[in-house]
Order: sequence, then structure tokens, then C-alpha cells
Amino acid sequence: MESKGQIISRYKTYHYIENLDKYVGQEVTLRGWVYHKTGKGKLQFIQLRDGTGIVQCVVFKGNVSEEVFENAKDLTQESSVIIKGTVREDPRSPSGFEIDVTDLKVVQLTRDYPITPKEHGDTFLLEHRHLWLRSSRQHAIMRVRAAVVKAIRDFFDGNGFKLMDSPILTPNACEGTTTLFETQYFDLGKAYLSQSGQLYAEASAMALGRVYTFGPVFRAELSKTRKHLTEFWMVEPEMAYFDLEDDMDLAEDLVEYIVQYVLKTCKKELETLERDTTKLEKVKRPFYRMTYTEAVEWLNKNNIPLIRKVGGKEIEEPFPWGEDFGAVQEEAIMEQFDKPCIIHHYPAKVKAFYMKRDPENPELVLAMDMLAPERGGEIIGGSQREDDYDRLLERIKEENLPIEAFQWYLDLRKYGSVPHSGFGLGIERTVKWITGAKHIREVIPFPRMIYRIVP
Amino acid sequence: MESKGQIISRYKTYHYIENLDKYVGQEVTLRGWVYHKTGKGKLQFIQLRDGTGIVQCVVFKGNVSEEVFENAKDLTQESSVIIKGTVREDPRSPSGFEIDVTDLKVVQLTRDYPITPKEHGDTFLLEHRHLWLRSSRQHAIMRVRAAVVKAIRDFFDGNGFKLMDSPILTPNACEGTTTLFETQYFDLGKAYLSQSGQLYAEASAMALGRVYTFGPVFRAELSKTRKHLTEFWMVEPEMAYFDLEDDMDLAEDLVEYIVQYVLKTCKKELETLERDTTKLEKVKRPFYRMTYTEAVEWLNKNNIPLIRKVGGKEIEEPFPWGEDFGAVQEEAIMEQFDKPCIIHHYPAKVKAFYMKRDPENPELVLAMDMLAPERGGEIIGGSQREDDYDRLLERIKEENLPIEAFQWYLDLRKYGSVPHSGFGLGIERTVKWITGAKHIREVIPFPRMIYRIVP
Repeated sequence: MESKGQIISRYKTYHYIENLDKYVGQEVTLRGWVYHKTGKGKLQFIQLRDGTGIVQCVVFKGNVSEEVFENAKDLTQESSVIIKGTVREDPRSPSGFEIDVTDLKVVQLTRDYPITPKEHGDTFLLEHRHLWLRSSRQHAIMRVRAAVVKAIRDFFDGNGFKLMDSPILTPNACEGTTTLFETQYFDLGKAYLSQSGQLYAEASAMALGRVYTFGPVFRAELSKTRKHLTEFWMVEPEMAYFDLEDDMDLAEDLVEYIVQYVLKTCKKELETLERDTTKLEKVKRPFYRMTYTEAVEWLNKNNIPLIRKVGGKEIEEPFPWGEDFGAVQEEAIMEQFDKPCIIHHYPAKVKAFYMKRDPENPELVLAMDMLAPERGGEIIGGSQREDDYDRLLERIKEENLPIEAFQWYLDLRKYGSVPHSGFGLGIERTVKWITGAKHIREVIPFPRMIYRIVP
Repeated sequence: MESKGQIISRYKTYHYIENLDKYVGQEVTLRGWVYHKTGKGKLQFIQLRDGTGIVQCVVFKGNVSEEVFENAKDLTQESSVIIKGTVREDPRSPSGFEIDVTDLKVVQLTRDYPITPKEHGDTFLLEHRHLWLRSSRQHAIMRVRAAVVKAIRDFFDGNGFKLMDSPILTPNACEGTTTLFETQYFDLGKAYLSQSGQLYAEASAMALGRVYTFGPVFRAELSKTRKHLTEFWMVEPEMAYFDLEDDMDLAEDLVEYIVQYVLKTCKKELETLERDTTKLEKVKRPFYRMTYTEAVEWLNKNNIPLIRKVGGKEIEEPFPWGEDFGAVQEEAIMEQFDKPCIIHHYPAKVKAFYMKRDPENPELVLAMDMLAPERGGEIIGGSQREDDYDRLLERIKEENLPIEAFQWYLDLRKYGSVPHSGFGLGIERTVKWITGAKHIREVIPFPRMIYRIVP
């Protein structure tokens, strides 16, 4: 039998708005939707979007048939349309080009598109997320999101890391079931949706050296803030033979790479979003670093208190060493910084059981969090991991975790244990910071929150 | 405050086995694990693995202190060790290099590593998956998997596609609940783990033109074959204004790109796996194509029957037009082919409701599946989508699906509907085919099957 496919695929000849610079003076066929339309007398101006950009298409009555001109006049917002025309450079146009239309075919005339140029409420927009994504702000945010993911993967792939997907369905409710989504797993009992791929990444790092997991993670938390989603994406590198210092260096290199990549490849999107890029340009290494203890001293010197609710009343007190930071403290600390800051060497009692004790101070763990400027909040949390079998076992017991469930994890400390470190970077928080989006639900295509699972 | 990070990160100076060609004649420090060790008299030969490769390290008694030599002699399988030595080119060595050891530090001496060079049973290996990943075959498969994912992302990112993550938690049991994992979603009722991101990808394609989703998908199927996992990864491109022909061309371009990329970047891994690469080299466009109807004719001409179980008995009959193919038919068809084959234009009744009717024959849909040679099975399933509102609504009703739940999906046919197409490629099936792995559970780091969710 003969093979029948094309050698050169037809789709490779299709024209897109983002590539118009290649076709100046030539005729192109653009296939998209009407973003906006105005007209007067013998001229119709169609703002055409095709997913890659927006370009103005000018229909002059003298250049087209009567039918085409009438069709152009009748076009409504979000009508799908195929437009033929000649590409003309036009520095006044936002895209840099205009199309002199020679032909136009209406694919579907849209009536009563629900999202109009007027203001809409949040709930209405979220209910229409499948259409809202077409709006220029949302479109720009999604393209930045794709660039952030690409930057992350390029960074790791280019630096000797191997992707190792960690499982979503996990057998044990490692840190209590209150914030976990659970499901019946055949006749093997309950399974839980993963909150982090870290433990699996550690096993993978012992096999492949430097790895990263990158997938959706889940939190059944009842948090209703601008920074919480129940389903979000996280990248988690894990490196054999890396200590905390290496971990922090890697985190800085990664974040610098992401931000600079977005600046380089998403100029138009950041413009659409009216993002102040001078602030992003500063995100270059070295970042700021302070220990947890230094941060507490700074808070007290600057009179940033701990606020406790006692019997319905808010009580302020000097920030005590050993307490975890909240948004108030983090934002106060970050006010002074024009680029990210890593806070490291936290009290053991506010951090997870798997973090390595500081050999110089048993009250501390070798943990680090990276906070973003401009109220970006915590975008990275990481640590050097406890690599001593006995000490890890002790911590598992202290936390009343089921030892049996952690036996395989303990094995990693039994068979060729090595110092190792890693961290997790939250994709949505990073995209929110970089785009300047108001709410985290705008930076994921179909957000999941405690009050929303549709569409 | 001064920023405190390093400008050049220390970890960038670390040496890895895969980069030894840069350090010939120089001293390097390698940090890894003992894969195997032999010795005799004044010589110890350590096969060191560091996750990037394996290299032989030669400890000559005359070159090191007595303590170092004794430590080297005592090394056991999977002991973690830091080795200093000089890189020597050695064409006889599998890595092409050898290390003349000058110093050696034992990080942890491993005792009784459970996986020895002898044969182990499947259950034992699966229970020790966290360690089994260190074995050279598993290690090679994981690296090919990472390359397959990278190839896919490079292909799409490089061809104007934007990543659009689709949600995992979905509100509706679109195609019946029997094969879905379900979980309670706060007080909004049940949520289900996604089986495909396609419907969301369609909405995204109307906003961004050409998109792909890439994430884990879930099937609570009771299938216990070498090709089934309950959790696996799938990439799903979706393209506005692409017809079935474009869809097939894209699928061929993608698969050619993946295979050729793996051949180029995973030579050592394919060697470790003893993969016959001459068969992979043939995977170049154009592939084979046949219609479903041609395939049925071929089956009957070649006496490949349909096998039905009737009352415990197997009954063979000529393959009837309208029946779906099973593994028997697919493998028979593929026996004749040295590269993938696309079968297209299937009977509507064996395919999903969202596929577009063939305008030339209402019994057919514009669907296509790609089968891989060498018993690789179906690696791609795709179609042009129904873009007519009324016809899609009719199909939803025919299948007794809840119209309310599909209202947002129907909206895509109401507001600027356009011809569009897409497909899904299963990562694990693709990796299984390319690596020649025996069982699909070997091609994902931590496999989930009906009888396994640990570790």
C-alpha cells in the first residue's frame, strides 16, 4: 500500500496575524473573529483577532464587490470571518500593520454575544469563562502563562534536569485529610489528590540526579482569598547533592530566567496588560536574602506587630520569634525591595517534617521561601531535605504520621542517602505577579475555587 | 539592604558524567552511587552512576591513601560516594571515558540493597518502584519519556501553539460515571477527575487559535492489560480553522518529530534498551492512511474475523462494517506496515458525539486514529469537531447527555463557530512503543493500576 499523507502539510501555509511582518505587500488569508467594528460611508474598519493578535482590516467599497461590502457592514462582535487582503505597514496601528481587504467570507454571523465592551460583574465573567478568554486582557494573560511554563521547562531541560511526572492519585493522607480531595480507588480503599509531588521527586532525584515534576496539585482548603485556588499548577525541582545554598541559587536563577524570558517574548501582552515593565527589568540576580531571625528583628524594629484574634477582638503584640509570617508581615518586609527576597533558616516548628535540621542550631530547619515584590507574595517554598534515617523517623513519629506509609520514603535514607534539596514554585502566583492580574482566578484558563467548578 | 545571592551559582560548576567529554585530562568531582563494583589485588573498579550516566572509576592502590583504598574495597551496591579523579578517554568503555581515582569519600555505605543483579518478580519490583527507577533499563526509559515530552512541547511551542491547561476537576459526568473517579467538591456536589481536556481545549482554541492541553487524565476502567493505566498523561492539540486533513497532517508531523528527536537525543538510552532503531528511523512522513471502510475490506480479504463471545463460546464471523476494531484487528492491519497508519472516516455509531458528520456520508464521522507499528497500538485519536449548533444539540439529546451541562460547550457553536479539529496523543503508549518496553507500567515513574497505588 502507498503511503498517502502530504509531505508538506497545507496547514504550514496558513497566515497568522503574529507573522504579518513576513508578508508586507503580499496578499494573505486571515481566519478569525471580529473583535470590534466601526464604519462610515464607503469604509468599514474591522478589528480582526485570530488568537495570535489583532489587526485592523480596512474594507473600502471601491475595492470589493457590493455583496462583500454589505457583508462587512453587517458584521457583529465575535462573528467568525475569513478575510483576504494585502498587508500594508502602518506605524500608527497597534499591530504595526493594516489589511486592505479584497475579499471577505462570513463563516458565522454572531448574534447577541454576551460579553460586550461595557463592564461586567465578576460572577458573570466567571460563568462565561469559555468566552471571556477571548477578551484581550484574558488572552494576554493566557499567553504570558504559556510563556512562563515554557521558560520554566526550557530552564530545567537546558540545565540537565529531567522531567519526572509524580502521581496525582496517592494512597496516603500524609499530612491529615482536612485539605485533601478524596476518591474511592477500586477495592484498595481511599486515594487522595496530590498536594505536592515532592516525596516522589526525591525518589526520582536518587535515580536521575536532577529532576523536576510539573503538574496540577490540589488543596481542599476553605481559603477564599485572591491568592487561593483549589486546583493549581506547581513545578518542583529536586536535586541530589544540592544543599540549601545551591537550592537558593537555583531558585534565583529560575525566577530571573522566567521574568527575563517573559519580558523578551511577551512585549505586546505586557503592553495590553499595562504592566510597568521597568519593575520586572530589575528582577536580576543577586536577589535579597535574610534569615528568618533577621526578618523578625526587622519587623520589630519597624513596629510591624503580630495580630491575634482573641475573643473577637484583635490584639497587637511585638512579633514573637517562632511564629510563622502571614501576608501582613510578608508584604511589610517586601515594601522595601525592588526584587524578590529569600527568607531562610526558619524555626523547625513552623515547617514540614521532611526539612533538614540546621546542624548549627537544632531549633532551625534549612528551609527557604522566596517572596515576590509588588505584593506578589510567596512564590517559592523549599528546603534541604532531612537525609538522616533516624532523625527523619523521629520527626515522622513526632508528627504522628503513619510510619508504614512512609516506609518507601524512609528507604531513600537507607539506601545511598545523600544531601538533597528542592523547592516548589506556584505557577499561578508567579503569573499573577508578572502580569499584575488582580485575582488569581484570572491566570488559569478554567479556575477552580471553593465556590466555582463551572465551566 | 544588600542583595546577598551569588552572581554565578556554585552548582553550575558541578561535574556530571554526561559532560565528561569537556574535562578530558582534567580532575573532576563526581557525586553519585555505586552501580556495581569488582576488584582484584591492587585495583578496584567502581561503576559509578550519577543520574546522567554510568562511568567506570578505577582505584589503583598506588594512587590513593590506604584508607581510601580500603573504603573503595568495602563499597557496596548503591552506596553513595563522592569520587575525585582524572578523566581519561577510553574507547573500550561504554561511556567512552574512565576515571583514574585520586580521592573517594563514602557518603553512606548501603547494606542489603533489595534490588540485586539477579532476576526479581514483577510484584517485587513494583513494590520497590522508588528504588527500581535506579536500574539502568528503568533509568533509560525515564530519560526517553522526558525526551518525548520535551519533543512534544518543542513541536507545539515552535509551531505557534499556546499551552492552555484544562481543569482536572470537572463538574459533569459527561459520558456516564462508570469510568470516572469522583470526589466531593465542597457543597457544590460531586466532581470528577477529567478523562480528557478536549472540550476545554475547544473553548481555548476559539480564544487563542491553536492550543494544546497537556496533563494527567484518569480512567477508572477495570481494564487489566499491558496498555492500561488508571492515571496517564495526554497531550491534546486543538486548532481553530483546521479540518480533518489538517488534523491528520499535524498528527503525522508531530509523531515524526517525536521519534526523530528521540533517535537524535537518546542514542545511549535506546542502546541500553536494545531497541532496534532501524525501525524507528523509518518513521518519516508520509505515513500510511486508509479509510475505515478500506480497513474492513482488507480485514475480510485477509480473513481476519470478528470474534464474539456467545454463551461462553467464541464465534468467528466476517468482520461486519460498523463494528469497532479491537486489538486483534489493529495488530493484523499493522503487520504490513513499517510506519504508523491513520485510519479515518469511521462509522458515527462507534465514535463520540462531538465528532463532525461527514457531509458526503451521514453514516460517517470525520474521525481518525493513528496506529503505531510493532504492536504499538492506537497512539492517537482525533477528529474534526461538530461545529453546527443544531446538529450538536441533536447528538447530545440522542446520547441522553445532560444538555444543561453542555450549554457552555454549545455556546462555542453559537458565538463565532468555526471548523476546528484536534486529537489526543497518549504519552505512555507512545513511550512504550518507542522504547519497546514490555508493559506500560514501566514507562511512567509511579504507575497507577487497578491493583496498585503504592508507592
